[in-house]
This record gives sequence, structure tokens and C-alpha cells, in this order.
Amino acid sequence: MSTEPRITISRIAAEAGVSVPTVSKVVNGHPDVADKTRARVEELIRKFGYRRRADQRSQRSRLLELMFHEIESTWALEIIRGVESVARENGMSVVLAESSGRHTPAHDWLESVLTRRPVGIVSVCSDLTAGQLAKLRARDIPLVVIDPAGQPGPETPSVGATNRQGGLTATRHLLDLGHRRIAVIGGPDGVLCSRARMDGYRTALEGAGQAFDPALVRRGDFHPRSGYRQLTSLLALPDRPTAVFAGSDLQALGVYEAARDAGLRIPQDLSVIGFDDLPLAGWLTPELTTIRQPLRQMAAAGARLAISLAQGRVPDSHRIELATSLVVRDSTAPPAGHLPSRTLSGGPR
Amino acid sequence: MSTEPRITISRIAAEAGVSVPTVSKVVNGHPDVADKTRARVEELIRKFGYRRRADQRSQRSRLLELMFHEIESTWALEIIRGVESVARENGMSVVLAESSGRHTPAHDWLESVLTRRPVGIVSVCSDLTAGQLAKLRARDIPLVVIDPAGQPGPETPSVGATNRQGGLTATRHLLDLGHRRIAVIGGPDGVLCSRARMDGYRTALEGAGQAFDPALVRRGDFHPRSGYRQLTSLLALPDRPTAVFAGSDLQALGVYEAARDAGLRIPQDLSVIGFDDLPLAGWLTPELTTIRQPLRQMAAAGARLAISLAQGRVPDSHRIELATSLVVRDSTAPPAGHLPSRTLSGGPR
Repeated sequence: MSTEPRITISRIAAEAGVSVPTVSKVVNGHPDVADKTRARVEELIRKFGYRRRADQRSQRSRLLELMFHEIESTWALEIIRGVESVARENGMSVVLAESSGRHTPAHDWLESVLTRRPVGIVSVCSDLTAGQLAKLRARDIPLVVIDPAGQPGPETPSVGATNRQGGLTATRHLLDLGHRRIAVIGGPDGVLCSRARMDGYRTALEGAGQAFDPALVRRGDFHPRSGYRQLTSLLALPDRPTAVFAGSDLQALGVYEAARDAGLRIPQDLSVIGFDDLPLAGWLTPELTTIRQPLRQMAAAGARLAISLAQGRVPDSHRIELATSLVVRDSTAPPAGHLPSRTLSGGPR
Repeated sequence: MSTEPRITISRIAAEAGVSVPTVSKVVNGHPDVADKTRARVEELIRKFGYRRRADQRSQRSRLLELMFHEIESTWALEIIRGVESVARENGMSVVLAESSGRHTPAHDWLESVLTRRPVGIVSVCSDLTAGQLAKLRARDIPLVVIDPAGQPGPETPSVGATNRQGGLTATRHLLDLGHRRIAVIGGPDGVLCSRARMDGYRTALEGAGQAFDPALVRRGDFHPRSGYRQLTSLLALPDRPTAVFAGSDLQALGVYEAARDAGLRIPQDLSVIGFDDLPLAGWLTPELTTIRQPLRQMAAAGARLAISLAQGRVPDSHRIELATSLVVRDSTAPPAGHLPSRTLSGGPR
């Protein structure tokens, strides 16, 4: 392959039957090229594997694009701060966009990105379509996904937390305290991080020789309302759970409200563990035991990876997972009338 | 004035003794002009009042710059969402930056803004220096400040909330409930919104014929720690307050913690009112009575104003204030042993 002549922009132009400036416009994201021509040129760029030379790549603007599925809660804030700090370190600025809750960014967002010629894109919980990915590749704009909703292909590097391990640790902590009826409220079914946490929950129960009871497994989204609704329904079970592993700290907040409305005290009557370790975890009463995921560091790692890809470096791995950890506070305790017999993880404060 | 010949870029170039392309580079924010030359050209642009023609202004990138003093808590999130939604409506994107807690943005931030040629700038709690303002004026880039730290001059339009009225309403609500020992914890002294709220507090006390007791007036920042510290100190007074007006919801959170640590129940032993109405106000136990400021709407108004200034429109007013409102929840009640005698505002739920 390396002995083949280098693919030039003139070669692409000749193949496409268009002028060199037209190919150049497509590569540089100028808007004034007919859709059909643009598609043909993009197809040839892909086919021949044309890449801009490094010195041309340096002509990019010093912008890093940050694309959110949903800007809500301090979760998003931690991500923003992580990306912003790395951008600033590198003399770059962050362009922020939100896809209004959809897990695929809109067409016009991508078009505006292409005209800006950014250093790279960091996308949060948002997976691009194959067509969108091809457009970015044709222009040599690297994409890194943080906490991908689905499983991205090896051509899309991603950064996440060790969600399965987090689910395992959370469930083991409750088992260690002596709980046997442990409910779990997950996030949306299709979302990767949520499925991984659920796997961890299941593995921990199996490891402790506990039966998996589907009645104790609920799904919702990551917002308080969903925690409220699911705990209310769990408390209506004939044999109610004594502990709940919530899918996020925000969901745990809804669990708190539902427990209070049902006259249950946390942790005496119900243990609750969250996920994320947002600032609010330390503000709740009682303070929330939770699984910490290092959101700011994840975002910073994603931004650094995008920048290093833009510099032509090859990543060691297309998937980076940062460690989760158990933060024991006041919302978990042995079930009423139980003395803990053993400690696999966590332990008394 | 209108009969004078239009100032052209060639005139500026002739006066400065440089070429037309050099002046053009300064106007368009290109970095490769010597500092001294740049300063001389900027000075002449200012002196002659040169402005780019409307058709040249339309050559700007479709970027709106959002500059934060500090990206923290859902306060910042509400602002981001307000600006982002208006940008999206107008087919624009938001470039986000943070000045790491300083109330004046850094020099290199402004330089990078100038090279991007944005539609306009929305700055939050952050006031530009006279030099920075001059650079923006020379390039016809409008600036709107949201919640300015100081009192900006008439040449800088700003958007805020009716902070004085908010302070008045909060204090009246506590007076109406029968409180007479009402403490206030403000924000940093130099910050405009904080001083306005304090004025409202004072005015309400005067209106009710209550003496103003300096021992009950505290300052901090808007974070929980500051609320904790100040309430702890207020509770050590020989005649402790029965109600507290906190400078922000986050500060109220610290007040909650300090009250709990002192064994006081809210609202039975101590009434607490916050400011902002962030989502957390509804999540606290008891739910927090607070003064709502419409942050997202303020941000949206600021973004719209910047865009309309960029289109050459003259604003009706250089200061927009959106209304605050009292949101009564569960953290305020009559002082122990007191039956409320009259209701000026708010009232029982």
C-alpha cells in the first residue's frame, strides 16, 4: 500500500469529473456545492482513502465541538467543564450543541460543523449515523464518543466508565450489609452504560448465590420522576425490597421522595445507593451512598483523544474506561434486625 | 453628521500609514498584525467611528460567544440552555468559555474571539475592560452582559432579574409570617445583583417599621459552604434569628445543613427562603421556599439582544430586567408560638 502513488485532490477531481476547487470546497466544508456533486466527491474520497496532508490539517480552526444528547443536571456540567479545561489548555475553544434529547445529532448540526472545520468532535451519549461518520472521515475530522448510547464500531473511539464493575460493586455493597431483596432501577434499555450496570447487578447476585427476581428489576430514565414511580411500584410488591440500587443520583432523589411519602426511613427501613456521585449526592438527607464515575476526567480524556487523533496519532485503544468507585455515605445500612456477617467490599465507615 | 463623507477603510489606512489589507486584517481579527500597528489602527477606527457596512457584517461566522465567570451548578446550566436554544433557532452555534472565576475575561480569550468574528458575545457575571470593549466596538461585535458584576455603562446592554424587588418580596414574606429577627446572607459585596437584593431586604424592613440590625446581615459567596458558615455564626448570637433570607438556593442548602447540625427543624424552628429557584429547591427536604429568577429567559433575552444588535438594530433600553417571583414551598412558616396577623404578599398555601 505504501508504494502506491499518493492520492491527490486532482486525481479525485478527475475521477469525479469536477474541478479541483470543487473538491477542495467539499473537503473544507464550504456550503456552495450541489448535494449530488458533494455526495459523488465524498464517495471517491472514501474509495481512494484520500487524506489531507498534515500541513493542511493544521489550517483548521481552533475549535472543539461538543455535542450533547441532552444538557441537563450537573452531569452535563461536569462533562462541559472537563472538555472546556482541555480545550483551554490547548488554546482552543468549545462549540456547544444539543440534539434535544435525540440520540442522533441533526443533519444541520453536522453541516454547520463541516463549515467550521473543527479540530475534532466530542459527542456525548449521541451516536452518529454511518452517513455522518463518512462525512467526518472524508474531511479527516476525528470523533470521540463519551458514554455512547450503543456500541460504537472500532472506527469510533469512545470513553466511558467501568459501568459493569460499578453495578457489581453497588450490589455487593448491599449484599455485604445483609440485604437479600435488592431492587434495581436501570436507565433506558437500549443505553450501553445502563445495560452494563444491570449485568454487574446480576453477576453480583449470582456470585452471592442469590436468585435473580425479575419483579425487582425496573427500568426508567435517569430523572427523579422515574425513581419515584418505580419505587412506589416496588413498595406495592407483597415482599418489598429492603434495598434499591438506583440508576443515577437523580433517580435516587425520586426514590428518596417515594420512600418518604410511604413513611419509610432511609436507611433504617430502606437502603438506597445511587450512581454518578454528582454534588447533590452529598447534599441530600441522608447523604447518598453512590458509585462515583469520574465524569470530568472522562470528558477530559475524550477531548485529549480527539486532539491527539487530529494530530495524526493512533490511539492505543478505541475504548477507554475510567474506574468507578464506591462512596459510602449515610443512605445504606443493614436491613432492620440484621447484623452484617461478612464484608466483601466497602465496609463500615 | 449624516452629511459627512462615509469613513472608508482606505481613509483609516492612509491615516495610520499602513496598507488597506492591514486595516482589513485588524477589522477581521486576523492575528498576523504587529501589536503596535493593531493598536494604532484600532485607535483610528474608534476616532473616526468606522463601521463595517451591513453586507460586510453578514460575512461573520454564525457563532455566538458565551463567556462565563464560572461554570458551576445548574445556575450556569440554565443560562447555557437559554443561549443555546436561541442560537439554534437562528441557525447559529454557541462557543463556550470560562474565565476561571475571574470577573474579567482573559486577554487570550478576546483574541481568539476576534479571529472567529462571531455574531455577538453574551457574557455572564463578567465585565470587560475598557480596552476589551474598544476592541469589540472597533470590529462591530456586540456584547450583552447577563447579571453584570458591576454597573455597566450605557454602551453595554445588560439583562438581569428584578433583584431589588426579589429581596423585598422575600423579606416581606418572612415579615408577613410574623418574623422579626430576620437574617440575610448576601453574595460577594461588589456584585450588583447581591447589592440590589440587600437593598430590597432593607427597604422591606423599613416599610414594616423594623430596625435594621447589622449583626443579622452577612456576606458570603453563593455556594453551600458559605451558607453553612454564616448560619452557624448567626445561631451563636445571643438573640438568634428566627428566619434567614439566603443569597441563593445553593447557599440555602448550606443553611439547611447548619440548622440540622444545630438540632433546629425547618420551618418549625427556623424559616429559610432562597433565591434562584434551581431544580434543587424542589428536591430539598423540606422543599425550599424561594425567589424565582427566570434564568433561561434572561439568557435567551440576552442572546436575542446580541443578535438584533448585530443586525444593526438599536435596543429600546440598554438594561432589561425580567421579573422575579415568590415560590412558596415548605421551608417557611410563622415563628414558634406566633399566629400571623396580616398578609402583605405570599400568604398561606
